[in-house]
This record gives sequence, C-alpha cells and structure tokens, in this order.
Amino acid sequence: MLEILAKIHPSDKEAGKKAASYIDTLTKPPGSLGRLEEIAIKLAEIFSSLSPEVTPPGVLVFAGDHGIVSEGVSAFPQEVTQQMVANFLNGGAAINVFSRQIGAKLAIIDTGIAGDLSYEGLSVRKIRHGTRNFLVEDAMTREEAEASLLIGYEEASKIIKDGAKCLIPGEMGIGNTTSSSAIISVLSGISAESLVGRGTGINAEKQFHKQQVISKAIEARKPNIHDPVDVLAKVGGYEIGGMAGAMLAAAANRIPVLADGFISTAAAFLAAAICPAAKDFMLASHLSEEAGHEAALKALGLDPILKLNLRLGEGSGAAIAFPIILAASLMIREMATFEQAGISGSS
Amino acid sequence: MLEILAKIHPSDKEAGKKAASYIDTLTKPPGSLGRLEEIAIKLAEIFSSLSPEVTPPGVLVFAGDHGIVSEGVSAFPQEVTQQMVANFLNGGAAINVFSRQIGAKLAIIDTGIAGDLSYEGLSVRKIRHGTRNFLVEDAMTREEAEASLLIGYEEASKIIKDGAKCLIPGEMGIGNTTSSSAIISVLSGISAESLVGRGTGINAEKQFHKQQVISKAIEARKPNIHDPVDVLAKVGGYEIGGMAGAMLAAAANRIPVLADGFISTAAAFLAAAICPAAKDFMLASHLSEEAGHEAALKALGLDPILKLNLRLGEGSGAAIAFPIILAASLMIREMATFEQAGISGSS
Repeated sequence: MLEILAKIHPSDKEAGKKAASYIDTLTKPPGSLGRLEEIAIKLAEIFSSLSPEVTPPGVLVFAGDHGIVSEGVSAFPQEVTQQMVANFLNGGAAINVFSRQIGAKLAIIDTGIAGDLSYEGLSVRKIRHGTRNFLVEDAMTREEAEASLLIGYEEASKIIKDGAKCLIPGEMGIGNTTSSSAIISVLSGISAESLVGRGTGINAEKQFHKQQVISKAIEARKPNIHDPVDVLAKVGGYEIGGMAGAMLAAAANRIPVLADGFISTAAAFLAAAICPAAKDFMLASHLSEEAGHEAALKALGLDPILKLNLRLGEGSGAAIAFPIILAASLMIREMATFEQAGISGSS
Repeated sequence: MLEILAKIHPSDKEAGKKAASYIDTLTKPPGSLGRLEEIAIKLAEIFSSLSPEVTPPGVLVFAGDHGIVSEGVSAFPQEVTQQMVANFLNGGAAINVFSRQIGAKLAIIDTGIAGDLSYEGLSVRKIRHGTRNFLVEDAMTREEAEASLLIGYEEASKIIKDGAKCLIPGEMGIGNTTSSSAIISVLSGISAESLVGRGTGINAEKQFHKQQVISKAIEARKPNIHDPVDVLAKVGGYEIGGMAGAMLAAAANRIPVLADGFISTAAAFLAAAICPAAKDFMLASHLSEEAGHEAALKALGLDPILKLNLRLGEGSGAAIAFPIILAASLMIREMATFEQAGISGSS
C-alpha cells in the first residue's frame, strides 16, 4: 500500500488556472458553458494539460457477495449477484449497453461472489465466497481488506495500461447498499437513519429494519474512524474495496475517475480517507435516488453532474454521464478562440 | 401551412404503455433507470415502436438579425451574428464540436443575417437583412413570418430525408433573447420582468432597460395571443420562426425534437401554439442559466433533462443532452430481459 500512496500527488492547480483563462478566449460568452467549463478546468488540473483527452474510458465492474444479506436487508436473493455477473458477461445488462455506447473498455472482476463462475472474460480474483455477516463478526480480515484494495488497484492499472483514459468503477453485490451505508456513516458521521433508503426496492418496514441492522452493527464492530482499512474490514465488501483501489489507481496514474451512485460514493470515501489527494481525480457523475446520496456527496465535497433519479449501480450512471465529461474535454481541445475566428468582443 | 398541420397527429400513447411494461422486464430493479425510462417511453410513443432509433441526429442552426438591437439590449454588437456564422462554417464553434461528438448531420441556415455571407455549406434562405425594430414597428410582415416557418419546415424536412432521426434546432442572432422574452411573455402570460435575464452578459442596468423595452413593445405591438403567427410577426425573429418550423417538421415526420435553451423554448411555444400535438414530439434538453427559462418550460409543460448552467444557445445544450436520449433508446433496444438472462426476481 505504501508504494501506491507514494505515487499519488495533488492535481496541477496551475494548469487549471491556465485552462480557466484559455476557456475565456473561446468563441462563446464567458462562462456560458457553465458546468462544462468547471469540468474542463478540473480535467486540465488532472492531466496537467490544456488538451485533456478522456477517450477511451475504462469500465471496471467489481462483484462480491455480502454475509449481511442473511439479516434480510435486500429485495433480491443472493444468487442474483452471480446471475447478473453472467448477464454482464453475455452483454445484456445496462452497463454493457452504456459501455458500448461510449466505446469503453470493460472488465468484470469477481472479488468475492458466493458461487463459482467461469466465463471467458471474467477476471477471477476471488478473495472469499462472500463477506461474513458484519452484524455478528467482522466482514473480513484486515488482510482481506488490503487484498481487495490491491486487486482493484491492479485491475485498474491493467485497463489503464491498455489505454483507458478515464475510469468508471462499477459494482454488483446483493446487500451492498447496507455495507455502503455503514462505511459512509462511519466516515462521514451521518446517521444510518439519514443514509438508508430503499436500496433496489425494499418497503418501509424493511428499510427500518435495515437502519437498525446498520446502527447495531456499527456499535458492535466499532470500526476505527481514523483507519479506513479497518472500516472496510469491519463493515465493507470485497467489491467496494476493489472500487476504492481502482480510484487510487486513477489518482496514481493521473487520470479522472467517475463516481457512480451510493456504493461508488462509499468507495470514494474510503479512497479519499486512505489518500486525501485522490479526491482531486474524482468527479461525481450523478445524484442518485438512494436516500443518503446527496448528504454523502456533500460530506465528501463532490458536486454531482446529473440528476436523473437513477438507482441501478453497475457504474451505469457514470457511463451515462461520461459524454458530458467528453464534451467538456472536446470544448477546450477543439473550439476556436475569438482571435482565431476574428470575432468582435462584448461591450 | 394547412397541409403541414394536417400531417401532425398526437404520438402513440399505446406504444408508450407497452414500452413501460416491457422496460419492467429488463434486467434491473423496476424504475431504477429513473428519467431514462421516462425518455424511453416517450421515444416509444413518438416512433410507435419498442425499438426507437435516434441516430444520427440532425442539427439545424438558424441565423438571423434583430432590429431591436438598436435599443441597446445586447452585450455584443450585431456583426457578431455573421462572424459567428462564419465560425460555424469553419467548424470552430461549440455547436460544431458537440455535433461532431454525437455524429450529427449539421445544417447552417441564413434566414435573415444583416450582412451577406457566401460560404460553401451555408444554406441562404434570407427573408430580409434582419427584422425591423419591434419597439417602433412590427418585426416582420405576416408573410415573412409564414415564410420563416416554412423555411424551417423545409430545411428540417431535407435533413430528415437525408437520414436524421432526432432534430436539434439551434440559433444565432444577436438580440434574440429580447425577441424570445417577448414571444414567451405573450404566449405564457409571464411578465417580461420575470422572464428577462442577463442574456449573453449584460449588466443589471441594461437588464432593467431590456425589461422596459419588451414591456413597452408588447403594449405598442399588441400581438394577438390567439394567433401565434401574429406574435411571431410582431415581436419575433426569422431564425426563431425557422426553429418553430423545424419543430413542426419533427412532429409531422414523427421523430423527436430537442429544445435547447431560452430561444429554443420560445420557438417551442410558437410551434405548440400553432399545433398543440407538436408538443408530443418535444423533449427539453436542459434548464439554462437564463432567468426566465424555468418558468417558461413549466408553462410549456416540459421537464428539462440536464441542469448544467448553460446559456450559450446554438443548440449546444441539446447536443450535449443528446447522448442521454441515445442511452434511453439503447436501453430499451439492447438490454436483456430477466427471462432471457435467467435471473431471479425481487421478493
């Protein structure tokens, strides 16, 4: 881990200032491309360049199961995790459709599915057949937590080496909104009551039960707020650790990483707690329907780009937002300046 | 005009109902793609199909000048209209960049630029060298207003015949937020004070002056609220008429049309007033920074997809939103169903 942290440094704020001045010379009223201009400035900081290039993107979907599902916190049975992973490998899921749309490289990684899948194209990096039930014991050992981060880092490094210029970490794991709520609650100080929503579709009674499970689990596990690896080990998930590791890889390689929804935000909290400079490389793609996402993003200090009432996961919202990031990069790369175009200024 | 109106019929609500049921069988929790599902349902209604195809899009940028600029309502001098049109034809403007990104067919149409431009690729359909100053006389004759609508209809029909499956009407015209505010004020009943913002960058004093000019002009011109062609003639612009005509062409050809910002919304008001069924084919791409846009869209009954604080025009915001529309169409076209993928349902 220490070698990884040594590679992560803050983004280039000077390049951002230069980008801001340059954007004001482009053929449009100053500031008129709003949020796109802010994104372009952030991309300039990340790439240390006035010509940031974000294509092709790389989508990494980490899958893992959760022992906590035996507490009845999810609307879907556990086998759906592996059934959906099979769907990813057959190309029929939302993340497949949107990855094809944006021309993304796509990697599917088994970090801890409860069953055993063997598919061409599936990267099997299984740590265990699902985490332990963190209401009664730690979700994983500290070694397993570190392994999940390292797997995410390695898989992301691979796709970056293969050419990916913008990362989209996604996930599949029945029960992982429960784990994510616990992680965010511990690291942000926001109560489980405020964070827990309906997940992929539970009713109000189950929602209350889920809040109770998380509150009790945090009390019982006592994760150390100053030690993100301890938080991941006690209440986390293997796929969430993988996503956090991928986010650290984006920062180490100085390319942007798009947070997706609630679970992705939990991973972003972990990555930022492990290495605060990693946050310089994160963009929040959308504000999801999940109840606590708005407060969580606010606590993390990220401003979501889209609000489309999504609550699917898989990285789907980030893939949907990617064309906005691409548009911002193309604006600064390709637009003519007032001088080049010979256009009169404003009065 | 009457032959055009005879071609426009409401969209197919039955196809929308079928699409809604079909979307619930796709491999995702019901409703979890939020706004994308609503868009897919609307596309199904528009195309009468569960497999709506929106590529390639067609961008039509209508340009025209405004006599009202002699009242000092704009931050930029009038010659910027033709300078920017030259920029469009040289490929350096924002709309060029975003049109290339989305693989759009692009048409630039001179409906009334004050100067004379001759460029390969410019469609010269000039009605007059700019409208008249509508504070002192009608902006155009009724014949000119009808001509602008027809030009828009014809140019859009051409790009549709050439293969465009989703229209993005854009505009360039120094002074056209003033004309648009007047049109929207008359057709929506919202006061000029509430509608008029800073345009492309005027200060508060000029903003107040602009509000006064519009209020006085509406009082003097007395546009007939029940006759949209009269409203266009008295306070409109040639490029705004062109955009409205293009929107009618989208409806007549049963393909979607994306409204951009404030000026595009004025055109949408005109098209919907001319033929209410045309609204079935419109989507509002974004909520712009222009002060009155939110109230205007609400009055029109359209819910914007993005909010990125854009205020550029040219059709740029609609081009930026197009990938979201595309994602919605690909979701319903390409995702596997639970049955196809053999996945367990929710409890």
